[in-house]
Amino acid sequence: MKEVCVRAFAPATVANVGLGFDFMGFAVEGAGDRVEMRLSRNEKTTIRLEGKYGHMVPGDPSGNTAGVACMALLTAIGSEQTGLDIRLEKNLPLGSGMGSSASSSAAALIALNRLLDDPFTVEELIPFAMEGERTACGTAHADNVAPSLMGGFVIIRGYDPLDIIKLRCPDDLFCALIHPHVELKTSDSRRVLRKDVPLADVTRQCANVASFITGLFRGDFDLIGRSMHDILAEPKRQQLIPGYELAREAAISSGAISCSISGSGPSLFALCKGKDSAVRAASSMQNALHQAGIGSDMHVTSVNAPGARIEHSCQ
Amino acid sequence: MKEVCVRAFAPATVANVGLGFDFMGFAVEGAGDRVEMRLSRNEKTTIRLEGKYGHMVPGDPSGNTAGVACMALLTAIGSEQTGLDIRLEKNLPLGSGMGSSASSSAAALIALNRLLDDPFTVEELIPFAMEGERTACGTAHADNVAPSLMGGFVIIRGYDPLDIIKLRCPDDLFCALIHPHVELKTSDSRRVLRKDVPLADVTRQCANVASFITGLFRGDFDLIGRSMHDILAEPKRQQLIPGYELAREAAISSGAISCSISGSGPSLFALCKGKDSAVRAASSMQNALHQAGIGSDMHVTSVNAPGARIEHSCQ
Repeated sequence: MKEVCVRAFAPATVANVGLGFDFMGFAVEGAGDRVEMRLSRNEKTTIRLEGKYGHMVPGDPSGNTAGVACMALLTAIGSEQTGLDIRLEKNLPLGSGMGSSASSSAAALIALNRLLDDPFTVEELIPFAMEGERTACGTAHADNVAPSLMGGFVIIRGYDPLDIIKLRCPDDLFCALIHPHVELKTSDSRRVLRKDVPLADVTRQCANVASFITGLFRGDFDLIGRSMHDILAEPKRQQLIPGYELAREAAISSGAISCSISGSGPSLFALCKGKDSAVRAASSMQNALHQAGIGSDMHVTSVNAPGARIEHSCQ
Repeated sequence: MKEVCVRAFAPATVANVGLGFDFMGFAVEGAGDRVEMRLSRNEKTTIRLEGKYGHMVPGDPSGNTAGVACMALLTAIGSEQTGLDIRLEKNLPLGSGMGSSASSSAAALIALNRLLDDPFTVEELIPFAMEGERTACGTAHADNVAPSLMGGFVIIRGYDPLDIIKLRCPDDLFCALIHPHVELKTSDSRRVLRKDVPLADVTRQCANVASFITGLFRGDFDLIGRSMHDILAEPKRQQLIPGYELAREAAISSGAISCSISGSGPSLFALCKGKDSAVRAASSMQNALHQAGIGSDMHVTSVNAPGARIEHSCQ
């Protein structure tokens, strides 16, 4: 055990990616949670909460996604080590649609894995992070934790067995991510969805998914844009997000190739060709929301952003 | 008008391609209908029916997909020419799941377009061929006519406007196509499908579609194989096809990477790595069906097979 203390960062994520309901996601550059961790001589794990949103998450390890994920890992390897000293810098807002819970667990797992001399590959950490998601939202889904850990754009093909496919997107594919300061409960976001989908709509959704992936491989931005037409979630969820239509129109008018809901909202993301275009789209969206009396944060990211990583370690 | 008489061929097609229900299709090498056509001085169009299945299609141009498609084209350009002498060599069995109706209209349109000095691109002929499909089965769908005309593997992204995307598949992706000699009404094939699909199933289907397209672009045969898992049509339709499970098992045992239903059946297709593997899969499937007392025809094709083409023209 070389490291005594490590600091790790894991990025925010855009899950669903509009038409990839519950199976697509990508990492976001520059926004994320940070974890500093030491192995403790005590049996008990403690979490010290810091950062802008630290006061909003549980300090009890059994209720905090970082704690839950680490316990799942330690249990899996039958470790005698059960005590961890965790400092969680909680930078991502909860219920934002930016993968806040996933970011905490991903950062914690990367840190713990390093402290244990990397017994797992990054991909092998995903099931432990999914346990954090189960605690946070009731479902052990992977569409935030997988891109937060692995970085870039991922497809969750299936869960039994877990089958994650990472795609390299065109280098000039960027994303403007806007978090409007409005409250939206994930339970409300789920509730508005249809439980059953007419067969013709399934065909349209699948056809757009196939075309979207084709667009990514070809670097065909026009195809990416016209394929980004979600008929499952967006039509139902947009009504829950004040200012959504205004922000969307602003994004498209400013040159974005598409705009949809990040995760279950209220955050919005717009895909753009080039970083400059993404910066313009983000500003336009913020302005449109501002004029409607809605404050927001913005992030601009490559869709090939890096995943969770060790920032610092000391012996 | 240089040509007086042309002969054209258009291939059979595998529509749906398992998990691409109603939006994917590819052309089949070596099987298809043939049309010989002359512009007539009479106002009336006549169709002379030949070939193995000529006796099974209407000779009246308004009820024959070749005639309907040609009339749609002539009407679109406001042509004074209304009379055509058509000889239709009907080689594809009807109701086979091999795109029989589409093959006739595609061959006829390619011939007529040439006789008129090619006023349309091949892609622009698709809407006319779709009118043939409307006559044949009640729906103007494009998942057979598009690959029959254009060749190769296509995605029908949408109909309004018509948006067809052609993919280049891995060169060594081959298909074993088996037509079992059993009767299956398209109406029965439609009837067994669920009208509504549970949201979780939609996600699984979309995730497999995204992964399948990724597999095609990467030439990742393992991914192509494990993504080919249709939960919309196959579980319902396979029970209508005697010997389906036997043939499917024979295909997979012989090394095929996947096996599913072609179109609405009863034909089956197996995707294989390399032509030899496809030949082996086809033989195994035929043997399995034979042992169950079911005769069949087989075809082995590249998934990048050519589309409709002029075979002969004379001045």
